[in-house]
Amino acid sequence: MKIAVLPGDGIGPEIIAEAKLVLDALGESFEIEEAPVGGAGYKASGHPLPDATLKLAKEADAILFGSVGDFQFDNLPRELRPEQAILGLRKHLSLFANLRPAICYKELTAASSLKPEIVAGLDILIVRELNGDVYFGSPKGIRTSTDGLFPGTREGFDTMRYSEPEVIRIGHVAFNAARKRQRRLCSVDKSNVLETSQLWRDVMTELGKEYPDVELTHMYVDNAAMQLVRAPKAFDVVVTGNLFGDILSDEASMLTGSIGMLPSASLDANNKGLYEPSHGSAPDIAGKGIANPLATILSAAMMLRYTLGLEAQAARIENAVQTVLSQGYRTGDIFTEGTKKVGTREMGQAVLNAL
Amino acid sequence: MKIAVLPGDGIGPEIIAEAKLVLDALGESFEIEEAPVGGAGYKASGHPLPDATLKLAKEADAILFGSVGDFQFDNLPRELRPEQAILGLRKHLSLFANLRPAICYKELTAASSLKPEIVAGLDILIVRELNGDVYFGSPKGIRTSTDGLFPGTREGFDTMRYSEPEVIRIGHVAFNAARKRQRRLCSVDKSNVLETSQLWRDVMTELGKEYPDVELTHMYVDNAAMQLVRAPKAFDVVVTGNLFGDILSDEASMLTGSIGMLPSASLDANNKGLYEPSHGSAPDIAGKGIANPLATILSAAMMLRYTLGLEAQAARIENAVQTVLSQGYRTGDIFTEGTKKVGTREMGQAVLNAL
Ligand SMILES: CC(C)[C@H](C(=O)O)[C@@H](O)C(=O)O
Ligand SMILES: CC(C)[C@H](C(=O)O)[C@@H](O)C(=O)O
Repeated sequence: MKIAVLPGDGIGPEIIAEAKLVLDALGESFEIEEAPVGGAGYKASGHPLPDATLKLAKEADAILFGSVGDFQFDNLPRELRPEQAILGLRKHLSLFANLRPAICYKELTAASSLKPEIVAGLDILIVRELNGDVYFGSPKGIRTSTDGLFPGTREGFDTMRYSEPEVIRIGHVAFNAARKRQRRLCSVDKSNVLETSQLWRDVMTELGKEYPDVELTHMYVDNAAMQLVRAPKAFDVVVTGNLFGDILSDEASMLTGSIGMLPSASLDANNKGLYEPSHGSAPDIAGKGIANPLATILSAAMMLRYTLGLEAQAARIENAVQTVLSQGYRTGDIFTEGTKKVGTREMGQAVLNAL
Repeated sequence: MKIAVLPGDGIGPEIIAEAKLVLDALGESFEIEEAPVGGAGYKASGHPLPDATLKLAKEADAILFGSVGDFQFDNLPRELRPEQAILGLRKHLSLFANLRPAICYKELTAASSLKPEIVAGLDILIVRELNGDVYFGSPKGIRTSTDGLFPGTREGFDTMRYSEPEVIRIGHVAFNAARKRQRRLCSVDKSNVLETSQLWRDVMTELGKEYPDVELTHMYVDNAAMQLVRAPKAFDVVVTGNLFGDILSDEASMLTGSIGMLPSASLDANNKGLYEPSHGSAPDIAGKGIANPLATILSAAMMLRYTLGLEAQAARIENAVQTVLSQGYRTGDIFTEGTKKVGTREMGQAVLNAL
């Protein structure tokens, strides 16, 4: 089994290093190959997603991704900025299904900005479409407008769009995920305003007939943003488009207080996937050895489960993480009074010990 | 001074009735005229925004709006659904600037789902553009796709767009609002992905040079959704487009625990405006006499201040609302142990007494 490891920028290399040690410790014969991506890719070969990195990602069975982005690349033209690497990988590898669990770990309830009774035990799954929507719709650009409110002026424009097969394939992923959980699926759109959403809602409703055992509801995105704050535990699985999913999945992970703990998977139609922590590259703390490696370690566990079919090994890692939390180890982001503050390496070591 | 009063659906008529009593009690010579809108408009004359209602809204100096929407209209074709009335009014009256304060009332801190230390004293202002973006951009529709991932299939599409003058005019509103507050403006976009956002960011940056006394920052919308949960008090004024503003302003109001208290204004270039509570029509509690009328009463106060130039009267109403809160009066939505639970009419009466 070949794993492409793409550490990226910021805290990426530090947290990936710990996840690699954990993979090594499992005693499986993984073939692990590393390549630069994001700002590191740009530095190495002038593009955030170098050809060799893309080739490796295509050949590999699975991809473990750190994070991309750093202040020093902020002023590059957009097509050369680090984020383009992640957009490129999603597109070139047809990784259309993004699974973003938002879990509030019992031990970390106090780290949330929400009241304990609102988030304790929270466990929701956001399924975000990742290949379509206004992210990739053409035409887009900057032009002189010919109509609209101020014809003849400079305008920026993008095309939001979803076709029926795109909605169907992400719908199946979400309904099937709901079947493995509480069998409740909430589809989020803005169909009171958008044609794209109207099609989305119609197709989801139709698809729901194939899953009579799953309760399907629909919610407008503005209301979803509110209900996540008011009563997040009311959700089980949420399915939504690329743009709304970007916003809501980040909002949901921040609710938990556990954002340093949350893994994510981006899958293609054959369950090949890219796995990355939900948090970003945190350039402000990069190189200090204080970043939390657990989301990356848990992303590696997700990879073993979804793509490599090693359920037992995935569970071993997850149990080890649970153990270090119970033992009281905390990196700075999840530290609260009375627990043991540790750095990135010590946290990785604690997981290895627990394995 | 002529005020168009549009009660609408759900709890709209009940909460508007209380706001009208408050306006009457001021002793000014307002000419108040009512007209049906939303579902009520559809029932009265087959369209959510009847011609006569639009005419009245155009003639009036200001508009006081209740809320629209009810389950019974959910299955009408989109162009006849209640929400179209509010979109139509915004468009026909060029109400491009939506001011949405998110304030956490001291007395209501406990009603928030966030920890008291995170929200106590929260006072942010979201300035949302209301006439453009993917809400109104053409072309839009349902068609057979000719390109994209699945050519030849049915697809929904919408056009996101902003022109330079549109960004400039909402930018001025936001910078000027920041000048009256802490002089910090955060512009929210998704310029790492969208051309529309790239233009938005470039224009805001340029405009910022005219306001050297205001600190301008930029934030991606996904990050903004997180920071609102993590540390909302870090914001002063936020300016953003129609779609992101829809999501973030609702998220922000829900953070406060005071959503039943939050007014909003939608202004044109001459400060003519439509004023409405930030909450919706709550059809589940309509007719029960338990809805909170304070957001509507405070919307009336905002109308006096921004459009009618009656600052002293606006302050009188706001002080009266503050008084009833101190006296412990609470409708069900903001009720906590140890306060006095009252209905819509009693709450309105308490405000009148305090005036
Ligand atoms: C970096 C950016 C392009 C990306 C996105 O918007 O999808 C990120 O926010 C994410 O959610 O993975
Ligand atoms: C009813 C709907 C069309 C409207 C919007 O999306 O603008 C509402 O959510 C609002 O924010 O006023």
